[in-house]
Amino acid sequence: MKRSDVLVIGSSAAGLVAALTARMVNPDKTVTVIRRENKCMVPCGIPYAFGSLTGTDQNVMPAEKMFETAGVELVIDDVVSIDRSAKVCRTGSGEEIAWEKLVLATGSTPVRPRWLKGCELDGVFTVPKDKDYLDMMKSSLAGCKRVVVIGAGFIGVEFSDELVKAGYQVELVEQKQQVLAQAFDTEIAERAGDLLKARGVSVRLGVGVSELIGDTHVHEVRLANGDTLLADAVVLAVGYEPNTSLAAEAGITITSQGTIRVDEYMRTNDPNIFAAGDCAEKRDFVTRKTNTGMLASTACAEARTAGMNLFKLSLVKTFSGTISIFATALGDTGFGIAGLTEAQARAEGFDVVTSTFEGMDKHPGSLPGTHKQLVKLIVGREAGVILGGEVVGGASTGELTNCLGFIIQNRMNVFSLLTSQIGSHPLLTASPAAYPLIQAAGMIVRDTLGR
Amino acid sequence: MKRSDVLVIGSSAAGLVAALTARMVNPDKTVTVIRRENKCMVPCGIPYAFGSLTGTDQNVMPAEKMFETAGVELVIDDVVSIDRSAKVCRTGSGEEIAWEKLVLATGSTPVRPRWLKGCELDGVFTVPKDKDYLDMMKSSLAGCKRVVVIGAGFIGVEFSDELVKAGYQVELVEQKQQVLAQAFDTEIAERAGDLLKARGVSVRLGVGVSELIGDTHVHEVRLANGDTLLADAVVLAVGYEPNTSLAAEAGITITSQGTIRVDEYMRTNDPNIFAAGDCAEKRDFVTRKTNTGMLASTACAEARTAGMNLFKLSLVKTFSGTISIFATALGDTGFGIAGLTEAQARAEGFDVVTSTFEGMDKHPGSLPGTHKQLVKLIVGREAGVILGGEVVGGASTGELTNCLGFIIQNRMNVFSLLTSQIGSHPLLTASPAAYPLIQAAGMIVRDTLGR
Repeated sequence: MKRSDVLVIGSSAAGLVAALTARMVNPDKTVTVIRRENKCMVPCGIPYAFGSLTGTDQNVMPAEKMFETAGVELVIDDVVSIDRSAKVCRTGSGEEIAWEKLVLATGSTPVRPRWLKGCELDGVFTVPKDKDYLDMMKSSLAGCKRVVVIGAGFIGVEFSDELVKAGYQVELVEQKQQVLAQAFDTEIAERAGDLLKARGVSVRLGVGVSELIGDTHVHEVRLANGDTLLADAVVLAVGYEPNTSLAAEAGITITSQGTIRVDEYMRTNDPNIFAAGDCAEKRDFVTRKTNTGMLASTACAEARTAGMNLFKLSLVKTFSGTISIFATALGDTGFGIAGLTEAQARAEGFDVVTSTFEGMDKHPGSLPGTHKQLVKLIVGREAGVILGGEVVGGASTGELTNCLGFIIQNRMNVFSLLTSQIGSHPLLTASPAAYPLIQAAGMIVRDTLGR
Repeated sequence: MKRSDVLVIGSSAAGLVAALTARMVNPDKTVTVIRRENKCMVPCGIPYAFGSLTGTDQNVMPAEKMFETAGVELVIDDVVSIDRSAKVCRTGSGEEIAWEKLVLATGSTPVRPRWLKGCELDGVFTVPKDKDYLDMMKSSLAGCKRVVVIGAGFIGVEFSDELVKAGYQVELVEQKQQVLAQAFDTEIAERAGDLLKARGVSVRLGVGVSELIGDTHVHEVRLANGDTLLADAVVLAVGYEPNTSLAAEAGITITSQGTIRVDEYMRTNDPNIFAAGDCAEKRDFVTRKTNTGMLASTACAEARTAGMNLFKLSLVKTFSGTISIFATALGDTGFGIAGLTEAQARAEGFDVVTSTFEGMDKHPGSLPGTHKQLVKLIVGREAGVILGGEVVGGASTGELTNCLGFIIQNRMNVFSLLTSQIGSHPLLTASPAAYPLIQAAGMIVRDTLGR
């Protein structure tokens, strides 16, 4: 029987990072990763394989090379059961692998909603992290002209934009009143929606889908308002479900949201079994409530925590709750969010004040390539603690959003932000006298002091 | 006699922000700014007025509009003396202005080194923050072909690059062995030097200038090694001196470095007189030593502290020492630094460990427009506290450097950085599994744990 001190199931973001971290922290332990797929996709790169990139081959994670360098063994196989008392996993090919510590990084599967009639028709696709499926999907799409994308979360929005770029006629249908409605406050989401329209996506908001119609192949989408849209293909982007059956069958506790229950160290109810990534429970950094966001960046942070705590608990830092930090881009415009939106904070019962500063991402704004830049801060009124922030800007949007992430994780307040030091450069940032994070903090201090 | 509760002398970065902050915090107080110049330059934009921009008109700070919006009065005049006991300033035009609180934001003047023979010749320019001078300089340069730039700090490097862009034949001469040698560690500075050469600047390192030669107009630069360079014009970029004569004549304490002595609240030895920006003393955030860096971003942070502490001390945050955070760009490559370099930290006596991670600023790296991205961390060995960081990358370099600034100001260590959450997006950031700040932290944890 094969033995590995650490066995990691899955090799997307969480599995990769958990394995590498486990090796890094425990150079004397053997680490093995077992996964189903021959090649792993860069998860957030998948939409771009349909437009900006030539295909999925350009979107393969260099996991094998990283494993080799780090001394992690890779097994391509499927785990079919976990024997917790024997501390052994059985695989589809009939092998057994014994482990001392097990990390479940089993990920998630796109939802194909049973309630939606016709969703099993040919030409109706989901977006799994599966290269073979995506390759099949891409070649099927090659013969199509009209594509209807259902669901305007990040995947739906990015897919729509990329498919338009690739020459398709795209209609994006969303039940909520905005695109990216779960991620951003309305006034920010509206900008994304307007931009998406300007880029050629036909966006239909506030309307659900009642049926997909076709004989064997989809040819029409019927909306809840009775309208019908012609469709050569349909992309379902209506969410992902955590893959937890393996864990559940082994008697590991599953939360009511369907994720694997974990503590602050990413341990399941079995102290030798950890979970990280889409399959694992998340608690919001601010509200402490269960959070269902599935992000590769969150998965990596969880995986680092899991990897560091396998053999002894690390006191340096637990995983102190999930901050959703993410960004997307439409053309040269970036949209980013860290922490709570205003709507989320208010719904949660926080007494918040907000401010929005809009300036330029270079200075002077007359420099070529200058992009408008907006920061909205969401701040607890009492102590001025920063609960969240949203960004719209140019190429620096992702890292400006990460600045907000560090600000929130360090529990900074508007006063300490206002007197923080930043660096600036004409071609790379806003003016130091109009730096958006500090200007937005100043607006709140001014309004608070002026009460 | 005119009266203003707050009088601010100077209206570049520090004066502008001090006045606006004073009004923001004290909406019931009158605030007046007095300055010499009709129009103020965006300080860090000056080099770009000679290449990327059509001229200085595109580089004017919109201070007047900001003052009007905020209710700050602007007086164009020159302060010639400060009467501290009467709390009155006298101006060049014979006016008197009485104040309750005075902010000195008198800035700095480029050094024209007396020891350098020929430095008063026609065609030898410095780079002051003076629109009229810069306009005169730009029209003089119009008839020139060969320009020698002396000094390869930020101003010299940026000027050289912009002048090449504008079609000049540029030789950059620097006594130190690297360009940007005070700002970056050698291996980073070398990259900037190589790039500058590749962009067409002739770079001469490790050699001083002994004399500028000409009858009335410079036509040759003699180097310390005996070489001579033909020159139609010379740009001196050898540093700036704080403007403190007004303060010194009023009996305000000046440090041995020639700056105005200030406390943590930016107060001079006179509790009613504050100073901020290039003219004011700076203490390093880490070493607590006097720091002579003159940056608009630092000036703005000091000015905010001064403005917040004028009428009552604000306990929310003092100005806890200067972190030099800055960035520059050569073409599409950004260079950024926050905190101490390795060389500075070692010279100071810190026991440091460093790590350098090099990856890509998008993911997968096959995406169009991907730029290499490097982060070097400088870390105290004992507690893993992050003392500094250097960045080389693409368009996100400025904000990635600002992430480092927030990390240092919050006194994070490599363990908390390693388990931090970040956000990522294919088009906007590195991969979450290879995010440079976290990867570099991980390398140090690995090496430290592996000792």
